[in-house]
Amino acid sequence: MFEAKLGNAALLKKIIDSIKDLVNDAPFDCSENAVCLQAMDSSHVALVSLKLEVGLFESYRCDRTINLGLSLASMAKALKCANNDDTCMIRYEESDGDSIVFIFEDVKREKKQEITVKMMDIDSEHLGIPDQEYSAVITMPSLEFQKTCRDLALFSDSLLITVTKSGVVFTGKGDTGSSVVTYSPTSGVDDEKEAVLIDVKEPVNINFSIKYMNHFTKATSLSPKVKLSLCNDIPIVVEYELEEHGHLRFYLAPKIDDDEGMRD
Amino acid sequence: MFEAKLGNAALLKKIIDSIKDLVNDAPFDCSENAVCLQAMDSSHVALVSLKLEVGLFESYRCDRTINLGLSLASMAKALKCANNDDTCMIRYEESDGDSIVFIFEDVKREKKQEITVKMMDIDSEHLGIPDQEYSAVITMPSLEFQKTCRDLALFSDSLLITVTKSGVVFTGKGDTGSSVVTYSPTSGVDDEKEAVLIDVKEPVNINFSIKYMNHFTKATSLSPKVKLSLCNDIPIVVEYELEEHGHLRFYLAPKIDDDEGMRD
Amino acid sequence: MFEAKLGNAALLKKIIDSIKDLVNDAPFDCSENAVCLQAMDSSHVALVSLKLEVGLFESYRCDRTINLGLSLASMAKALKCANNDDTCMIRYEESDGDSIVFIFEDVKREKKQEITVKMMDIDSEHLGIPDQEYSAVITMPSLEFQKTCRDLALFSDSLLITVTKSGVVFTGKGDTGSSVVTYSPTSGVDDEKEAVLIDVKEPVNINFSIKYMNHFTKATSLSPKVKLSLCNDIPIVVEYELEEHGHLRFYLAPKIDDDEGMRD
Repeated sequence: MFEAKLGNAALLKKIIDSIKDLVNDAPFDCSENAVCLQAMDSSHVALVSLKLEVGLFESYRCDRTINLGLSLASMAKALKCANNDDTCMIRYEESDGDSIVFIFEDVKREKKQEITVKMMDIDSEHLGIPDQEYSAVITMPSLEFQKTCRDLALFSDSLLITVTKSGVVFTGKGDTGSSVVTYSPTSGVDDEKEAVLIDVKEPVNINFSIKYMNHFTKATSLSPKVKLSLCNDIPIVVEYELEEHGHLRFYLAPKIDDDEGMRD
Repeated sequence: MFEAKLGNAALLKKIIDSIKDLVNDAPFDCSENAVCLQAMDSSHVALVSLKLEVGLFESYRCDRTINLGLSLASMAKALKCANNDDTCMIRYEESDGDSIVFIFEDVKREKKQEITVKMMDIDSEHLGIPDQEYSAVITMPSLEFQKTCRDLALFSDSLLITVTKSGVVFTGKGDTGSSVVTYSPTSGVDDEKEAVLIDVKEPVNINFSIKYMNHFTKATSLSPKVKLSLCNDIPIVVEYELEEHGHLRFYLAPKIDDDEGMRD
Repeated sequence: MFEAKLGNAALLKKIIDSIKDLVNDAPFDCSENAVCLQAMDSSHVALVSLKLEVGLFESYRCDRTINLGLSLASMAKALKCANNDDTCMIRYEESDGDSIVFIFEDVKREKKQEITVKMMDIDSEHLGIPDQEYSAVITMPSLEFQKTCRDLALFSDSLLITVTKSGVVFTGKGDTGSSVVTYSPTSGVDDEKEAVLIDVKEPVNINFSIKYMNHFTKATSLSPKVKLSLCNDIPIVVEYELEEHGHLRFYLAPKIDDDEGMRD
């Protein structure tokens, strides 16, 4: 039996909404300490990695390690029914056969909603992601990163990220125009949430598909900050922390194409 | 001559907006005491019954019983032009021939809007709705009923309503999942508007097309509460009260089909 | 070299958004005292005339009179990237060849955005607009004018404007209905912004295409007031003042067609 309760349904709703356009069906690995999910997007370019630690839940019981396969579209539908402040219980009982139950409760209103979603058989191949030293790590307001990706997509299909000690530069070049957005590391830290922190061991200059970045930034509402870990020639990690007890990470391999010439 | 004035146009605007997708053309029966409207929806499954009593109007004059046929789409267009706080005069004069005039006034701005809408010939067959004893009557927040119908429509075409002394249960079952929403009668009545009142003489278990319910709940903004009157095998009444001087009621026959098996 | 800086990008963004559906490509005439733009709409029925005086800018430098041709769609894209409070620098240097640079700065965030837009060759024929005495000048809240045009378009393709000493009347007649909106001159001027001022030398009765009016009123957010200058048989001027240092004017010739009969 697996049974876990979130204090409010909004967190899970936001998580699923931010990955459901990237991944159709996903295996949730439930174990004693956490619920984990790893899945490639349907075109096998990006990897989504989610970890919900026990600390995020109000109650948590997982009798044995189990893998629950779910259509994220169905899950999003179920979560759409919850009010943001409803509690959210997720329950799987072997005796229930092939379905998972989401129970939303609005205590004030003595209202209870029980949604049953059919499970799916999904081949779960947990990919070992090697530990990696990154040349540059940027922490910035997640809204800023979202807006920058959205703006650059107006002009370009590619996003060139250049990091040096003096700042991070996002560049998009297209036929009708081009856009260059520069962030200097914030010096006076008035508002910690607004800070742009840049930690550079080696300069980085690397090009990505902007379409995927715009997918990833759907997770913006999950955290006020986003962390970008970069190293030339290897996948970027775009990470949103989940209330200090988990994370949603997106991995994207660099774009190696005609734009290569842009690397100066 | 018929001439009636509403203190603000918003009420009529909301009424027409909530029924115009169900009924195309409608006969308004104007008499000394009230304006009434009865119309079947175009597929002859649901019945709309509207009553605007004299008490809703600031001034009201109806020289003789008269039937005014109007396209609800044209009427909605006319009302769209009114600001919510404008006064709304409706006027029909025999000498004007086949049109009705809506006059919206914004007194502060010394602005006056006069919209003329062509009338239509509509066969008005006033259906005698028999008085009926209902097995169960539920009064609940109209927003809650709206959300429940919308949520269940994500999974199902049918809405099964089950009422017992312990509460009311709305169930929708579909291929990818199912949803069950339970309301217990509210005990502590802190906020009367939020109360769910359940009056049961006999248990009810009855199935409806959810599509029609979602049409009816467009009337949600008309009243904070909705009243559902239920009895096995006969049409449900979904009623919104209009400022204590009238009502908008929807009647819908139960669904008798393959889902019949769901009745346990 | 041309270099001009606006205190915030919102003003230019609103201007371009309000004319970009009317005019595709436009020549900006930059001189010592102002940036001016004159362009016919693509169907050569309406004329747009924009004047941005030096007073609107925080800094302004124009070494010699120069004409910068730009696609308004590209310009709108560039401006979409700016936050409303960003400063907006527009820069053209002969040495940069055929492109203009927009630089948006968010000083608080140490963020800088540099967008390069390709210029276009546009035949600039500055049309001499003759000085004109108008029979009637109406000043009214721009939101009211916008709403009236939008409402009348529900019924009609044409907008008949009738001005007399007692007020201004906007009329739209169609097959399913008609609408007449009357404004009396406001007497007590409680709120100057809400005032409708009517200055009539001679009565006016003149008919326009309502489609164009609905294009013009996209400029509504630029100013709380709009000024309509009217004279029988000649183009109307619809004018939005820009912070006392410029204007956006639309000229539209009267409609001369079957509706002519409507003129009384």
